[in-house]
Amino acid sequence: MDFRKITLTEEEMPRQWYNILADIKMNPPLGPDGQPVSPDALSPVFPMNIIEQEVSTERWIDIPEEVLSVYSIWRPAPLVRARGLEKALDTPARIYFKNESLSPPGSHKPNTSVPQAYYNKAFGIERMTTETGAGQWGCALAFACAQFGIECKVFMVRVSFDQKPYRKSMMEVWGGKCVASPSLETRAGRAILEKDPDTPGSLGIAISEAIEAAVGDTSGKTRYSLGSVLNHVMLHQTIIGLEAKKQLEKVEEYPDVIIGCAGGGSNFAGLAFPFVYDKIHGRQIEIYPVEPAACPTLTKAPFVYDHGDTARYTPLLPMHSLGHAFVPPPVHAGGLRYHGMSPTVSQLVDEGLLSPKAVTQNEAMAAGILLARTEGIIPAPETSHALAQVVIEAKKAKEEGKEKVILFNWSGHGLLDLGSYDKYFAGELVDFELSDEAIAEAEAVYADFPKPQHLKSR
Amino acid sequence: MDFRKITLTEEEMPRQWYNILADIKMNPPLGPDGQPVSPDALSPVFPMNIIEQEVSTERWIDIPEEVLSVYSIWRPAPLVRARGLEKALDTPARIYFKNESLSPPGSHKPNTSVPQAYYNKAFGIERMTTETGAGQWGCALAFACAQFGIECKVFMVRVSFDQKPYRKSMMEVWGGKCVASPSLETRAGRAILEKDPDTPGSLGIAISEAIEAAVGDTSGKTRYSLGSVLNHVMLHQTIIGLEAKKQLEKVEEYPDVIIGCAGGGSNFAGLAFPFVYDKIHGRQIEIYPVEPAACPTLTKAPFVYDHGDTARYTPLLPMHSLGHAFVPPPVHAGGLRYHGMSPTVSQLVDEGLLSPKAVTQNEAMAAGILLARTEGIIPAPETSHALAQVVIEAKKAKEEGKEKVILFNWSGHGLLDLGSYDKYFAGELVDFELSDEAIAEAEAVYADFPKPQHLKSR
Repeated sequence: MDFRKITLTEEEMPRQWYNILADIKMNPPLGPDGQPVSPDALSPVFPMNIIEQEVSTERWIDIPEEVLSVYSIWRPAPLVRARGLEKALDTPARIYFKNESLSPPGSHKPNTSVPQAYYNKAFGIERMTTETGAGQWGCALAFACAQFGIECKVFMVRVSFDQKPYRKSMMEVWGGKCVASPSLETRAGRAILEKDPDTPGSLGIAISEAIEAAVGDTSGKTRYSLGSVLNHVMLHQTIIGLEAKKQLEKVEEYPDVIIGCAGGGSNFAGLAFPFVYDKIHGRQIEIYPVEPAACPTLTKAPFVYDHGDTARYTPLLPMHSLGHAFVPPPVHAGGLRYHGMSPTVSQLVDEGLLSPKAVTQNEAMAAGILLARTEGIIPAPETSHALAQVVIEAKKAKEEGKEKVILFNWSGHGLLDLGSYDKYFAGELVDFELSDEAIAEAEAVYADFPKPQHLKSR
Repeated sequence: MDFRKITLTEEEMPRQWYNILADIKMNPPLGPDGQPVSPDALSPVFPMNIIEQEVSTERWIDIPEEVLSVYSIWRPAPLVRARGLEKALDTPARIYFKNESLSPPGSHKPNTSVPQAYYNKAFGIERMTTETGAGQWGCALAFACAQFGIECKVFMVRVSFDQKPYRKSMMEVWGGKCVASPSLETRAGRAILEKDPDTPGSLGIAISEAIEAAVGDTSGKTRYSLGSVLNHVMLHQTIIGLEAKKQLEKVEEYPDVIIGCAGGGSNFAGLAFPFVYDKIHGRQIEIYPVEPAACPTLTKAPFVYDHGDTARYTPLLPMHSLGHAFVPPPVHAGGLRYHGMSPTVSQLVDEGLLSPKAVTQNEAMAAGILLARTEGIIPAPETSHALAQVVIEAKKAKEEGKEKVILFNWSGHGLLDLGSYDKYFAGELVDFELSDEAIAEAEAVYADFPKPQHLKSR
């Protein structure tokens, strides 16, 4: 029988997250004085229990029971054999994906929003603020906050706010509040609107607004939450890869190629890091983070120190960056419109353990439609960037006649992104090309910042 | 550990559907001459292999391997313990639901669209036509047709077409075509538009158009498909209840109360019929189909012979009916806007085996939001009608101090219905009241038709 899914029971769900900081060397985040930031300095922004996770170098960190219980609403996520795609491409590759689209918010994001809401609640926090690009993260935090009885305020990048109006409705069903960013509610937002009233917004700007809204609450009961980039976010997402490993073991497979789309890096890291561990210890695997050609952080920008946000509220982080003031073109994969990249992912790219790729949004949409028709699930535009690379690899395997095992992450569904599909069918999706001059100009903002060291983990 | 889901492996998925026609007595469908319709007379509308299923009285019917393989994209569906709701209501009831929202189209509908597409393909059919209310069924058929390489044409009730524009996009991603009904493409549609150009449309009208589009194709390669009402549809949906039974056995539970929303009857029947079998054989269970107060087919209309569609293309079916010309008020639960009801469900209501309930759309939405916040999943407005009854039963169990087991069907998610939630929050959702006069007037259309017998199955 040609079944598709390799499932785990709830009892088989991993009980610990994998912390890659135990296995790689990292440049520290730096403060305005150029010195490493102390954990205490972050305490107005994040609760202390999350800061401890952010800096921990323990390899395995226990998942709290309350988090496992909420995870069990949708986890373990199935590992799916992509039989429809294999057949359509007539490829000798065996293709598997983690289906992270089955969570109530529709993406991998609640893997971290749930523990973040839990830890904030445990620390006595009553209100969380955040930013969101395409809206997946804002929805995920609103969902998690509803589970733990916390208020939730979301600053949503304006271009996505306009493209995807029902994301706001979704957050409201879960009791969250959502405004377009830049907004008039923060100094950072007002300053940007004054200069450019028609700005499409960016994740960098929205992060500034959300941090300001948290830190500015004098009651001390509000904290900020980031849906990607940071170490503790990557940590929480590793449940994806840890489950995938167990599932592949059940069918006696091991991946030759691992693929995930990368904006801030979290769904990619979640799938890849448990396998990166194996690669650090000698295993042969190709690992591809895939980004939009319109926002080529890993493929065209250098490894530098830069701010995570436009208003420069965050410490300097060691990462691939197009510059904190860069406003990416308004591609529909809003979740990938980020000038920077997770420091852990950036570190691994810098030392050659990962091989980044870039695809255009039209390539991504074409692959997304092929996958929707063959595997059934309508992918988010972000996910479709990974799918485009999967199609390339599957075709390559056919050309080479190789029985490769390809593993990728289906990070989310596109049911709130159907307007993008309409535009694609109407031939209205533009592939933005960034000129070298535009990139050089964007990158000039960090010319005077300190430079990270090139470290080697193996 | 407070886990939520009771899962089955793909190997544990039922291999046969349960056919209730083996266990109940039914009035036959009648032709224009008042005589029982022969299977052959339906052959321009449905392929013969489906007609055979429609009239079969075999208790168990094998599920083809190709269907099981496509089912395995999302089935077996989890049975979920609604711990969040139980806690929020502080009820002694133990509440379980089948989560049918995890299919790619987001509802229980592909349980039948997949076998229907399979059987049409096997019979050499190249194009299928259908109608859709809220769009769940049209999407389900487009999804299924993509899996088997068949063309798909959908007539979508205008009010839902306007309320839920992305349903059309979704069908197109899967390669389907969708037009608003009434349309100018059929005689039935043109006749209605001539009389009432601003009609919101109805399922009855859309069915007429889809049948006409199928029967009118002189190549003989097109057939019509119905997403509810008919015996073979109820048959395919029983996989829901068969899985639920296996899952409840694993935790040694048996339901005291079973609840499902009912428009044409298929998600309700799918969950309930395998338990109706037990009830016929002496088991004590309360079984509630829940309909909108704005379209009270089971709670206010009699058991009669009536047409399934407005243009009277279908045979006379024995069912509870508000009259084939009745255009239900434009409630957001478009899938429940049907003047009639499955003959099998109607028969069971007539003999007192089921106890129908009706709720308003505002009651439904309030329950839907409570469930979204406690269980995470945003329900379809249709599903929310069942949820309103679940909340009533859970509160009753608390008042009575009874440890009841409540089982309900979460028939679909509401991610394409978020506009309804916006209207609810804005206080703009109207609860339509049907006067007794309006109902009597609607019902006059079948005054001269033959009357069904009151049969008893036990």
